[in-house]
Amino acid sequence: MRPMRRIRVTVWNEFLHERQDPRIAEIYPDGMHSVIASYLRSQGFETRTATLSEPEHGLTQDVLSNTDVLVWWGHMAHDRVDDGVVERVYRRIVNEGMGLIALHSAHLSKVFRRLMGTPCNVKWREAGERERIWVVGGGHPIAEGLGDYFEIEHEEMYGEPFEIPQPDELVFISWFKGGEVFRSGCCFHRGLGKVFYFRPGHETYPTYYDSNVLRVIGNAVKWCAPVERPRPVHGNVKPLEPL
Amino acid sequence: MRPMRRIRVTVWNEFLHERQDPRIAEIYPDGMHSVIASYLRSQGFETRTATLSEPEHGLTQDVLSNTDVLVWWGHMAHDRVDDGVVERVYRRIVNEGMGLIALHSAHLSKVFRRLMGTPCNVKWREAGERERIWVVGGGHPIAEGLGDYFEIEHEEMYGEPFEIPQPDELVFISWFKGGEVFRSGCCFHRGLGKVFYFRPGHETYPTYYDSNVLRVIGNAVKWCAPVERPRPVHGNVKPLEPL
Amino acid sequence: MRPMRRIRVTVWNEFLHERQDPRIAEIYPDGMHSVIASYLRSQGFETRTATLSEPEHGLTQDVLSNTDVLVWWGHMAHDRVDDGVVERVYRRIVNEGMGLIALHSAHLSKVFRRLMGTPCNVKWREAGERERIWVVGGGHPIAEGLGDYFEIEHEEMYGEPFEIPQPDELVFISWFKGGEVFRSGCCFHRGLGKVFYFRPGHETYPTYYDSNVLRVIGNAVKWCAPVERPRPVHGNVKPLEPL
Amino acid sequence: MRPMRRIRVTVWNEFLHERQDPRIAEIYPDGMHSVIASYLRSQGFETRTATLSEPEHGLTQDVLSNTDVLVWWGHMAHDRVDDGVVERVYRRIVNEGMGLIALHSAHLSKVFRRLMGTPCNVKWREAGERERIWVVGGGHPIAEGLGDYFEIEHEEMYGEPFEIPQPDELVFISWFKGGEVFRSGCCFHRGLGKVFYFRPGHETYPTYYDSNVLRVIGNAVKWCAPVERPRPVHGNVKPLEPL
Repeated sequence: MRPMRRIRVTVWNEFLHERQDPRIAEIYPDGMHSVIASYLRSQGFETRTATLSEPEHGLTQDVLSNTDVLVWWGHMAHDRVDDGVVERVYRRIVNEGMGLIALHSAHLSKVFRRLMGTPCNVKWREAGERERIWVVGGGHPIAEGLGDYFEIEHEEMYGEPFEIPQPDELVFISWFKGGEVFRSGCCFHRGLGKVFYFRPGHETYPTYYDSNVLRVIGNAVKWCAPVERPRPVHGNVKPLEPL
Repeated sequence: MRPMRRIRVTVWNEFLHERQDPRIAEIYPDGMHSVIASYLRSQGFETRTATLSEPEHGLTQDVLSNTDVLVWWGHMAHDRVDDGVVERVYRRIVNEGMGLIALHSAHLSKVFRRLMGTPCNVKWREAGERERIWVVGGGHPIAEGLGDYFEIEHEEMYGEPFEIPQPDELVFISWFKGGEVFRSGCCFHRGLGKVFYFRPGHETYPTYYDSNVLRVIGNAVKWCAPVERPRPVHGNVKPLEPL
Repeated sequence: MRPMRRIRVTVWNEFLHERQDPRIAEIYPDGMHSVIASYLRSQGFETRTATLSEPEHGLTQDVLSNTDVLVWWGHMAHDRVDDGVVERVYRRIVNEGMGLIALHSAHLSKVFRRLMGTPCNVKWREAGERERIWVVGGGHPIAEGLGDYFEIEHEEMYGEPFEIPQPDELVFISWFKGGEVFRSGCCFHRGLGKVFYFRPGHETYPTYYDSNVLRVIGNAVKWCAPVERPRPVHGNVKPLEPL
Repeated sequence: MRPMRRIRVTVWNEFLHERQDPRIAEIYPDGMHSVIASYLRSQGFETRTATLSEPEHGLTQDVLSNTDVLVWWGHMAHDRVDDGVVERVYRRIVNEGMGLIALHSAHLSKVFRRLMGTPCNVKWREAGERERIWVVGGGHPIAEGLGDYFEIEHEEMYGEPFEIPQPDELVFISWFKGGEVFRSGCCFHRGLGKVFYFRPGHETYPTYYDSNVLRVIGNAVKWCAPVERPRPVHGNVKPLEPL
């Protein structure tokens, strides 16, 4: 087989909670993005990071053009993400096939909502309860290496109805101790791009040190990576056959 | 609008547990099929019943030809269902559009497994635990009249991975107190026919007296009802355009 | 069965081509919306019309609140549709379950693109060529009454790749004489609402007098009609079980 | 990234047409399987072949246990494939994740029909007409390297309705000169296994020398390859949480 080109990942984080709340800083002193990026590097992905406070949020056209998969964590500052940057990210996904992994509260990020076409609201509860993530995706590559389920001891709860289109491929369903369920691993195709939503990752818990969570993110990077194809032709075309 | 023709339903039950176990007979003295049929009649459906011990299991060609939607409950006697009858039911679904509602342990019935193309195994536990059925199907007609969820106080547990193809439309996901989840309301299209799998209904609990459960079965009858179309043409055909 | 409440339909048309081009006016002297509305009335639907030039494009909150299914035809004036009206239509669909039938060039309408989350571009050609619409949806209610295919003698061509998410249910695929194919009958679920895209209907051809085309629109109205359900609860919730 | 283990492919062919018809023997002197296998080897896959006339059709348990992806071509001898071998292949797919690529007339093979749960009939015509295969799968890995479409100058026609469940992912739609369309690249998940149906490949044309056709088969091998996961636990289980 052809040697696969190294996949280039950019991990984006608004990086505010970790700098504003000492308890969160204790868990993620360099930000959640650093922990995720560190894992992805260890798996051989060419990985960089970007954050809200950088110029253009660190997502210049040049950075995006050299990103195969964008990992996104945002929560309290969705509205502070510049619309021009959102447009740029959106186009890079739909028109050029960049993958997007939307983590946890990124369900309300501008770009994810735009890609879904729905408001993407959820039920939620911050009670540090147990989440058990069941694999329903059979032989889906994002489930590689996982058993029937894995557990996260303390997490924020997200509950149904999750206001998204039916996923093209549903990989995980979460059980929560407080009584709810959630479609927590969801695949979507949008234009040439692929999008994976993955639920876990509240900022007050050490979720992104969990080996199963990291493994899923790594698997998703591979699934999301662009496929080399010319951009489709749209617009007025001549007939291919005699009329 | 044209007045809708009355939908003709046949409720099939192996009707063994209710006759062999006095505790079950106490809950369903005339069988689960009678309770379900009684509700469907009250909703205006033309409803009859059929059981395993009748000649041809009560599913003669004539009965099937006059059935729009077949409701199926089976458990301990899947293997005693005649293959010829299974074939007849299968053809009536795929070739002529009869709907099938497979209830609870019917996940292992011959006809459901054949329609799925998978073994349809589940995890299970008889502990009378709480089941909370969440609606993820938004505006799906099978969810008509339901809130975000409904509960069944005591039920057998079925857990993932449920060995089925990804449903064409996923309407319900169950939460179980013991820690599992389950895709408990699943729509499938097969040829001209539509199939709905609905999880609840263990014989030792009065599940089929529950108003939400009954409502779902009634909604599903409407969703499953055949669409009037000529049977497709297959085989060798002439060109429709000059070659 | 409960008598079904009459479904209330609003047929919206930008109604510009028919007033600006005499050849089109000859085909549709009162606009395409009038022809479609007339058919829907004949099928028993409570039907009104609305057009771009009316105040608020005829889509006041009151009109929308009393519309179960909105049929939309637009082409040259997508950009002149007020964003506030688009928002209102969008909310009525996603939050309250109003159905949307997007016809032909409505693939580029603001509300359809927003619901899809993709740019929705197509290939196209105005050559009056033959379109043959194949039914791949088996027992789907939108195919009721149709054979394996139907033909439209003269139509504009739309060709793949149609930049939409994979439809939840694909009902029709078009064959075009000039060599292209198109997914021409596509179902989508968005929040509580259901959306049907139906390809045919270029303004220069008498497509909306075609009995098969009208039948499909009528079938789609029934499929799109809202399901009575309370609006979902989102936001912060208390546990349903002890933590 | 971890170096990927070489994917092990077995190309199965009934290998009858090529030995019985001199005109076909001229095109494929060593059988279609040899041509396909030769290409797959050139792409770095560990590839072997197997044919109907070998003991156990060349698909012993040992061969299957060492096969990651099985490519299947059959036509005139579907009924001569031993049921025990079919069962073995089926289990290896569903229970252990082996991939299956069903080519052309394999739509009527025992194992494909069993996996689908439907009869899988088609319209057909042997007229050597032009087939144009359109890519509707956006960024799907099976479309890697393809433009908007590719053509096969002479092929047998297969036409809709193709009696299969709605594919989990629809990658290709074919246009035929004689007026039909066909869903010609279809992905299905079955248990731990993945199945790809690919339409082209009538024995009387040199289709399996076509570079686009070969590329698709190679892409599909990668998509179909098993994911390393423990086999799911089914049956009676203990609660994971206090009841």
